[in-house]
Amino acid sequence: MIQVDISNIWGQVALPELLGIEKEISAAHMALTQGKEFLGWGTLPADRPTEQMLRIQAAAEKIRGNSDVLVVTGMGGSCVGAQAVIELLQGANRNQGKGKGDPMVLFAGNNLSSYAWQRLQKALEGKDFSLVMVSKSGDAPESAIAARALRWMLERKYGSENARKRTWAITDPEEGALRQMAREAGWETFDIPVDVSEAFGLLTAAGLLPMAVAGLDIRELMVGAWEASVEYDLRSFENPVWLYAGVRNLLHRKGKDVEILESFEPDFQLFGAWWRQLFAGAGLLPVYAQLGAEAQGNLLETMVRFAPPAQPVQVTPDVKNLDGLGCLEGKTLDYVQEQALLAALQTHTDAGVPVMTLETDAICEHTLGQLIWFFQLACGISRYVTEEAAR
Amino acid sequence: MIQVDISNIWGQVALPELLGIEKEISAAHMALTQGKEFLGWGTLPADRPTEQMLRIQAAAEKIRGNSDVLVVTGMGGSCVGAQAVIELLQGANRNQGKGKGDPMVLFAGNNLSSYAWQRLQKALEGKDFSLVMVSKSGDAPESAIAARALRWMLERKYGSENARKRTWAITDPEEGALRQMAREAGWETFDIPVDVSEAFGLLTAAGLLPMAVAGLDIRELMVGAWEASVEYDLRSFENPVWLYAGVRNLLHRKGKDVEILESFEPDFQLFGAWWRQLFAGAGLLPVYAQLGAEAQGNLLETMVRFAPPAQPVQVTPDVKNLDGLGCLEGKTLDYVQEQALLAALQTHTDAGVPVMTLETDAICEHTLGQLIWFFQLACGISRYVTEEAAR
Repeated sequence: MIQVDISNIWGQVALPELLGIEKEISAAHMALTQGKEFLGWGTLPADRPTEQMLRIQAAAEKIRGNSDVLVVTGMGGSCVGAQAVIELLQGANRNQGKGKGDPMVLFAGNNLSSYAWQRLQKALEGKDFSLVMVSKSGDAPESAIAARALRWMLERKYGSENARKRTWAITDPEEGALRQMAREAGWETFDIPVDVSEAFGLLTAAGLLPMAVAGLDIRELMVGAWEASVEYDLRSFENPVWLYAGVRNLLHRKGKDVEILESFEPDFQLFGAWWRQLFAGAGLLPVYAQLGAEAQGNLLETMVRFAPPAQPVQVTPDVKNLDGLGCLEGKTLDYVQEQALLAALQTHTDAGVPVMTLETDAICEHTLGQLIWFFQLACGISRYVTEEAAR
Repeated sequence: MIQVDISNIWGQVALPELLGIEKEISAAHMALTQGKEFLGWGTLPADRPTEQMLRIQAAAEKIRGNSDVLVVTGMGGSCVGAQAVIELLQGANRNQGKGKGDPMVLFAGNNLSSYAWQRLQKALEGKDFSLVMVSKSGDAPESAIAARALRWMLERKYGSENARKRTWAITDPEEGALRQMAREAGWETFDIPVDVSEAFGLLTAAGLLPMAVAGLDIRELMVGAWEASVEYDLRSFENPVWLYAGVRNLLHRKGKDVEILESFEPDFQLFGAWWRQLFAGAGLLPVYAQLGAEAQGNLLETMVRFAPPAQPVQVTPDVKNLDGLGCLEGKTLDYVQEQALLAALQTHTDAGVPVMTLETDAICEHTLGQLIWFFQLACGISRYVTEEAAR
C-alpha cells in the first residue's frame, strides 16, 4: 500500500499544528462517506467483476478485434486519467507498432486545434477505427465538434448500420445531448452515474473502457482501488490519506500557495495532469513537474516514488571507466535514484521547501488503482476542509 | 513575426509603471549583446547554412539511412527543446510507423527510471539504431548511465568499429568526460560552444541533429531564428520581446509569483517544458498548463496562439443537429478557438489575472525558430533585470 513520509516537513510544521487539523480532517472524511456530501465515486471500486465491467470487457474485446485505432473523445478528468494510466503502464511511445488485435488508443476532442485534428485524420487514413464518446453533459464544444466529424467519417467509411456498431457513448444515464443522440442512433452506452462528476469519473466506464482497449487489466485496477477504499477508511493519522491531506491543507494555511507533484518517471507526466485537474480550485495551485524544480518559499512538493520493477536494472560495467561511473557498477538504477532523491530532499529542505514522499508498490494496474483512490479521497477531504474553513 | 497583446493587463499595471521599467530592460538588452554578459547563444542563428549545419545534415542523412531508431541521451534544455520542436511539428504520436528512411527519434538519459529503461530496451529489440550523446560536461549520471548501456548494446550488436560509426557526441569543444571519451573512441563530434549553456543550447547541434534526423527543415528553423535576432534587436517597447519581458518582470515586482504558459495546442506540452526549464530560477515560477487553469490572485498567464494552418478545418455539417452545434456550421475550428479565447480572457481578467497573448504565424520550422529566439532573448533580459534589481 501507499506510505506517506512526512519527515521532511518538520522545519515548516509543528506536531501540535498537525494534530490541530485532525478534527477537520475527520469531519471531512465523515461528511464524504456518511453525510450529505457523499458522492457517487465512493462506491465505484469493486473487488469482483460487476455486470458493467463484464460489458466493458466485451466492448473492449470487440474493438480490439475489429479496429486498428480507437479514438476517444472527451475533455474531462476521466479521459485525461485513462490516457495517464495507459501511458504510465505502456510508455509515451505506447502506440508504436500497434494495430488490429492490440489497437492504438488516441485521445481527441480535448482541444480546438486544427493542427491536432489534421494529424488525427492522417493517423486514421486507411485504418479501421472505432469511436468512444465520453461526456457527462455532451456540452463541451471541443468534444462535440470532434465527435461530429468522427461520426461522419465512420458513416462514410462503413455505412450507417456498421458505423453504429463501432460507436459508443459514455454519458449521464438520462440527461444531456449525448444521451439523447445515443437514444436516436442506437449506440451502445455506458453510464457516468448522476452523482459522479467527470473529474472523479476515472473508475467509471469513461476511464475503464479506453484502458481495456489498450490491453490493461482493469479488474486488477479495480481490486487495487477497492483495497484502498477499505484500507484508507481508517479514521486517524495512521491513514496516509489523512497525513497527505492534513499536511497540504496546513501548509496552505501557513502561506504556501503552490503544490508541485514530482516523480522520477518520465511517463508519469499525464498522471500529473490528471492529478492537477482533480485538485484544481481546491486551495493550493497544483503543478506537475519532474524532479528538479527550483526551490522557492511559496512551494510545497509531493514526490511520488514507485517501487522498482520485479527485474532490476543494473549499471553497465565498463573497464575503461572514462565516464567515472565505475563506483556505481553493480548498483541498480533504483539505488542511484534513491541517492538522487536523498540529495534533492536535503537541498529542498534546506531551502525551506517542505517535501512529502508517497511511496507505492511497483507500477502495475493494482498499484495505480490504489493511487487513484488515494488521490481522489485526499482531494475530497482537502476540498471539504478548505471550503469549511472558508465558511 | 510574433505579436504581443498586452491589452488585458491594464487592470493590474499602469502605463507609467511599465514605462518606468524601460531603462532596466534597455540596460539588460545592452548588457546581453554588447557588455560583459554577452553569451554565445546570441551568435548561433544564421541566415545561410554554415559548415557545421552541413555536417549536421550529413550526419542526419546517414542516421536516417541506416537506422530504425535514433536514441538521444541528454538531460539539458537542448534535448527537451529538440523533443518539443519535433512533437509540436509532428504530434505526440509522431513515431507511429517510422523506421529506416524516416527513423523514430527517442529521448533517454533524462531520468533514473528502471521502467523507462526497460521500455527503451524493448523498443530497440530487433531494430537498427544509432546513438547521439548530448552533454556539455558529461557529468549528469542520468545521461552517463544510459549512454554507457547504449554503447554496450551497440558494440555487442555491431562490433567496435561499426558501433563507432553509429555513435555521436555533442559536448564541450575541449573539456569534460564526454569529450575525453570521444577522443579515445574516435566518434564524430559536434561542439556546444564554451560560452553557450545547455539551457540555451537548442540552436546548437544538440538541438539541430535530433530535429534533422526526425526530418525537420533545420535550415528554415535557423533562418526564422536569424530573422528574429535581427527584428528583436530593436531598442524600444515596439520590440515585443521588451513588452513581454517588461510586463512579466513588473508583475513579479507587484506580487505575482507564478507565470502560467498556455496554449490551445495539445502538442505544445513539451515546448512548455522547454520554456519552463529556460525560465526556471529567474523570478516567477514558470508553469506550463493547457488553457483553463483556474484563476488565482498570484498568477499571470501567457497564452501562445498560433495562426491557423494553410488548410483550415471546418465544423462538420449535420442536418439532425442533435448536439446543437448547428450554429457553428461553416465556421472553422480557429473561429471557435477565437471565441473560447475571448471568453477565457474575460473570465481571467475579471478574476484579477493578467493575461498576455503571443500571436505567431502558423506552426512550422520558421515560426518555431522565431519563437525559440523570442523566448531566449526574453529570458536573458528577464534574468538580468531580476538579478540587477536584487543587487
